[in-house]
Amino acid sequence: MIMDTIKREKFKKLFDKLNVDFLLIVRPESVRYVTEAGPTYGKINLVVVPQNVNECFSITSPRDSSIIKNSSWIRNVEIFDETPSESKNLENAISVASKAVKALGHGKLTLGVEMEGISARGFDLLKKKMPRTEYVDVSEDLRFIRLTKTPSEIQIIKHAAKIGDEIMLTMMENFQVGKTELDVAGEGVRLAFNYGVERFLWRAVMIGVRTALIGASPTHVKAKEGDNLLIDYGFVFNGYVCDITRTVALKKVPSKIVKMHETVTSALQAIIDWIEPGVRVREIVDYVQNAIEGFGYKRVPHDLGHGVGLEGHERPIFNEKEDMVLEAGMVFAVEPGIYIENLGGVRVEDEILVTPQGCEVLTQCRKNLIMN
Amino acid sequence: MIMDTIKREKFKKLFDKLNVDFLLIVRPESVRYVTEAGPTYGKINLVVVPQNVNECFSITSPRDSSIIKNSSWIRNVEIFDETPSESKNLENAISVASKAVKALGHGKLTLGVEMEGISARGFDLLKKKMPRTEYVDVSEDLRFIRLTKTPSEIQIIKHAAKIGDEIMLTMMENFQVGKTELDVAGEGVRLAFNYGVERFLWRAVMIGVRTALIGASPTHVKAKEGDNLLIDYGFVFNGYVCDITRTVALKKVPSKIVKMHETVTSALQAIIDWIEPGVRVREIVDYVQNAIEGFGYKRVPHDLGHGVGLEGHERPIFNEKEDMVLEAGMVFAVEPGIYIENLGGVRVEDEILVTPQGCEVLTQCRKNLIMN
Repeated sequence: MIMDTIKREKFKKLFDKLNVDFLLIVRPESVRYVTEAGPTYGKINLVVVPQNVNECFSITSPRDSSIIKNSSWIRNVEIFDETPSESKNLENAISVASKAVKALGHGKLTLGVEMEGISARGFDLLKKKMPRTEYVDVSEDLRFIRLTKTPSEIQIIKHAAKIGDEIMLTMMENFQVGKTELDVAGEGVRLAFNYGVERFLWRAVMIGVRTALIGASPTHVKAKEGDNLLIDYGFVFNGYVCDITRTVALKKVPSKIVKMHETVTSALQAIIDWIEPGVRVREIVDYVQNAIEGFGYKRVPHDLGHGVGLEGHERPIFNEKEDMVLEAGMVFAVEPGIYIENLGGVRVEDEILVTPQGCEVLTQCRKNLIMN
Repeated sequence: MIMDTIKREKFKKLFDKLNVDFLLIVRPESVRYVTEAGPTYGKINLVVVPQNVNECFSITSPRDSSIIKNSSWIRNVEIFDETPSESKNLENAISVASKAVKALGHGKLTLGVEMEGISARGFDLLKKKMPRTEYVDVSEDLRFIRLTKTPSEIQIIKHAAKIGDEIMLTMMENFQVGKTELDVAGEGVRLAFNYGVERFLWRAVMIGVRTALIGASPTHVKAKEGDNLLIDYGFVFNGYVCDITRTVALKKVPSKIVKMHETVTSALQAIIDWIEPGVRVREIVDYVQNAIEGFGYKRVPHDLGHGVGLEGHERPIFNEKEDMVLEAGMVFAVEPGIYIENLGGVRVEDEILVTPQGCEVLTQCRKNLIMN
C-alpha cells in the first residue's frame, strides 16, 4: 500500500525545503498523521520517513505492531523488545530506529527529527548510535503541513462533526426541569461512545448561573424553570477532534440571556460570513471583540477559536497574537461567548472549513435558544 | 502550605542520593505527584523542586495557574507568556524555569532533570540559559519514588477502587439477554462520569465468543442465553487509576467456561495468598503460568499484572522479565486470563495493596460467574 496522494505531495515539498535524507517522526499526532493507524496503546511509537515516502518504517511495541499492521498502509513494521522498564524500552526503540535509518542510508546523513517530541534522553541515545549524522528540528514544519487538511481528513472531520451534531441534539432535547448537569453529560457520553468516539477532550455541561463559569465540569446541580444550559463537547473520532458548543434554555429565561444569545449568534454569523482564504485571523478577532464591546458587553475572556484536527487546539489560534492568514483546507472552531457573573453565560461554537470560495460550516445542529 | 510529609521524606532521600541542588520536574505524572493539582489543561507544566521542597516553584500557562493555585499546596506559581505557537511557549516556559532556578541558587549548580520527559529542544534551550549547570537524569528515580504509595495516595486509590466496584456491580446486574456490548459499556461510562471519573484509559466490554479477543472495544453484538460477558475497566479518578475486570455469565453457560472461570479465580486467589513484602514478582508469574498450564490451558498471553498509580501501567510489571521484589505500599492489578478461540475468554482482575503483613485486596466486587 502507499501513502495518501496529497500527504505524499506535502512530504515531497517538505523534503525539498528541508534538504534532509530522512525524517524521524516522534510526536503521537504526527505518527498518526503518517501511519493513519490507531489508536495505539504504547508510549513509544516512531516512524522513519525516507524521501521515497512509501518506504516508511514504523517502530512499535509488540502490541501496537498488530494495530499498525491491521490499520495502516505501512508494511515495514519493526518491533522493539519490550521490557518492564520504560527507560530500557526507549533505548531499544531508538536502537531499532537507527538501524532502520542506517539500513536505508549510506555515508553521512542529515536527519529531520521532531526535537519537541523526542526526549533529551532519546536524542542523546540517537546521537550515540549515529554520531556522524547531522540533525535538523522539524517540529514546526510537521505541525505546519497539518494546517490544511487533506480530502480524507476532511471526510473524517465531517463525520465527527455529524456525530457531534447528533449527540448535541439528543442532549438538548432531553433537557428539562429537574435534570442535573451530570444527567445531561452522562447521556452525551453514553451516546458518544455508542457512535464510536475514542475519547473525550472535554465535556463541560453547566446549568443556570454556573454557565458563567466557562469550562466547569458537570455537577449534581438541577435545572429549574428559566435556566439556561451550556454544553461544550470536545471528543476524538478516528483520531480527529470534533468541538461544538450550544446554549439552550427552558421557557421564561431572563431577557438578558436572550439578548446575550442574540449577540453571540450574530457575532458567530458575522465571522462565518467573513471567512475565506486570505483573511488575517487577527482582523476577525479584532472585529468580533469590538462588536461585542459595542453591544455593551465585556470582551470575550478566552480565545475566540482554534484549529482542530489530530489535536484539540491547533493553529490558527483566534487571538490578537495570531499572525496567520486563512487558507483553503484549514478547519477550526469559532466560539464567541458572553459571561455575566451571578447571571449566566452564553457561548455558541461551530466548526468551520475554509473552502477556495469561502467556508463551510461543518456543525449543523440548531442554534435556537428556546427548546420548546 | 507544605508538601505531604511522606513525600517530603522521599524527596529528602532523593536529594541525599543524587547530590543535586534542584530537580526540574517535567513528566505530567511527576508534576501531578508533586503539585497534587489537577487535572490541568496545558501541554507544558513544569515544577522546580529545591532541597527545601516546601519552596517548590510551579511554572504554568495562565489557564493552568488558577488550577494550581486552587488545588495545590504550592504557592509559588509563575506564569509563562502563552502565544499561538507551541514552540514559542516552550521557549517561554524554559525561560521562566531557568530564572526561578537562578533566583534560588547561586554559582555553579547541579540540576536533576527528567531527561525522558523534557524534549531535546527544551533541554537545548535550558542548556543555553544555564550553560554552567551540570545536568543529571532523574527519570528513573522519579518513577521509583512513586512505586510505594503514600497513605494519602492509598486513600485516593481505595476510593477509586470502590467506585470501580460500584460501576462493575451495576453493569453486571444490568446484563441480560438482548443487551449489546455498547449498552453495557455505555451504562458504565455514564455511571463513571457521574462518580467524578476524569477519563477512561480503556473500556473493554465483550460478549460470547468475542471474550477471547482480550481487549476488544464494545460493539453492537447482542447477548444471547448462555453468553458470558467480560468487562475490563481502567479509569482515572483524582489522578489515580482504577483497573478491574470481571467475567460473568447468564444461565446455561458452556461448562468449559465454568471450568475456565474456576481455574482463573483460583489462580488469582493463589496470587493474593502469596503476596507479601519480599516476594519476587517473577516467582509469582512462573507459578501462575505453570499452574494454568498444569490445568491443560495455554499460558496467559499477556502480562499477569502491572503496578497502578498515576499511570495505568507502572512497575512492577508481572512478566518473566521483571526483577522487582514486592514492598509494602506497592499497588498493582493482577489479571490472570484464559482464552479459547471461537469459545470465549475468562479474565478476573483485582487491585492489590502490599501491606507490611501481607496484602489487602482493594477491589471487593463479587466474582461469581453466574449472575442470577
